[in-house]
Amino acid sequence: MRIGVLGTGMVGQTIGKKLVELGHEVRMGAREAGNEKARQWVMAAGPRASHGTFSDAAAFGEVLFNCTSGDGSIPALKAAGEKNLNDKVLIDVANPLNVKKVPLPELSLCNDDSLGERIQREFPRARVVKSLNTMNCQLMVDPTKIPGDHDVFVCGNDEDAKSTVKELLRELGWAVPIDLGDITASRGTEMVLPLWLRLMVTLKTPMFNLHVAR
Amino acid sequence: MRIGVLGTGMVGQTIGKKLVELGHEVRMGAREAGNEKARQWVMAAGPRASHGTFSDAAAFGEVLFNCTSGDGSIPALKAAGEKNLNDKVLIDVANPLNVKKVPLPELSLCNDDSLGERIQREFPRARVVKSLNTMNCQLMVDPTKIPGDHDVFVCGNDEDAKSTVKELLRELGWAVPIDLGDITASRGTEMVLPLWLRLMVTLKTPMFNLHVAR
Repeated sequence: MRIGVLGTGMVGQTIGKKLVELGHEVRMGAREAGNEKARQWVMAAGPRASHGTFSDAAAFGEVLFNCTSGDGSIPALKAAGEKNLNDKVLIDVANPLNVKKVPLPELSLCNDDSLGERIQREFPRARVVKSLNTMNCQLMVDPTKIPGDHDVFVCGNDEDAKSTVKELLRELGWAVPIDLGDITASRGTEMVLPLWLRLMVTLKTPMFNLHVAR
Repeated sequence: MRIGVLGTGMVGQTIGKKLVELGHEVRMGAREAGNEKARQWVMAAGPRASHGTFSDAAAFGEVLFNCTSGDGSIPALKAAGEKNLNDKVLIDVANPLNVKKVPLPELSLCNDDSLGERIQREFPRARVVKSLNTMNCQLMVDPTKIPGDHDVFVCGNDEDAKSTVKELLRELGWAVPIDLGDITASRGTEMVLPLWLRLMVTLKTPMFNLHVAR
């Protein structure tokens, strides 16, 4: 599958690398075509990897990952271009964290709105699926890095898009995602972040994940 | 131990009953002394149970549970009387849910504030510990109701108060609570509620709980 990964940070690099390893063709998108991190990522990731602008990556991908920082996601997706997002499965793994807040980031959207919803509103023909945003990127692509049962959530308005995402999640090693319903459930998963950040401080590691015991 | 339980709803009744069963003397507090639910609870709970006003229950207890609805907690605690809260361990299990919001309640405080913090600010000499607010009350008092590992969180500014709460949690069946630090961590645990409510809809049961897999 051709996949566009928007964002050159740790999350985009980690997801992109794993998708290449799984046999997908992956184009990483950055604000500018000559982005040095994207270029180095391509050199490390091999022949199925390429890079370009946000627009290049979005046009390339049949499925897109939003791996930009949450507060920059809307501008990045606008730069990607609405026509390159229309009808595509857009997997939003970002969180709307205001990282300027100390000691811990707060959310810049929450409670009666979320980044997932905002992206869906801004790009009504994109098929937005929120997922993977409740864990460290090392776990996103390899849930076996921690033992025992733990969970990944999905939500979105388009059932076919969610099926595509669930299949990709299966390839990444996830058994049965918890489907929380429509995109408004992004509020729930994004609002886990304050607990997640506290847990990271408490446990002194980002290598943990939530499990819904039942 | 003498324990005051503020609130006559399902949470207060369930916690109060279990505390009586564990051998504690429990006084349930309501807005009015003659509260019918409190009276019936006393009849069912037996000789170590009593009831009265918020103020009666707060004066009685060495340790207090705030089991009022989150949006009514500050008025209830004011009715209990600051002098009756001073120096007491006050376990806040409430969530600031605006239940008028449909289809699912939203939080009336979050992100840069929380009910736990607000109670601590309002009653600076109370030793507020936030705990148990991330699960159904049946699980609060009997974690074995669901199989496998799952977690309870505590946070608060007073280490001795947290020790008292951890001991009470142990009596309720909880092994090792996750101590998230000071009372500002209430933001994290209260903000779990939107996910919790979605999960309840998705799983069609409130009998689940979060586990931090690591």
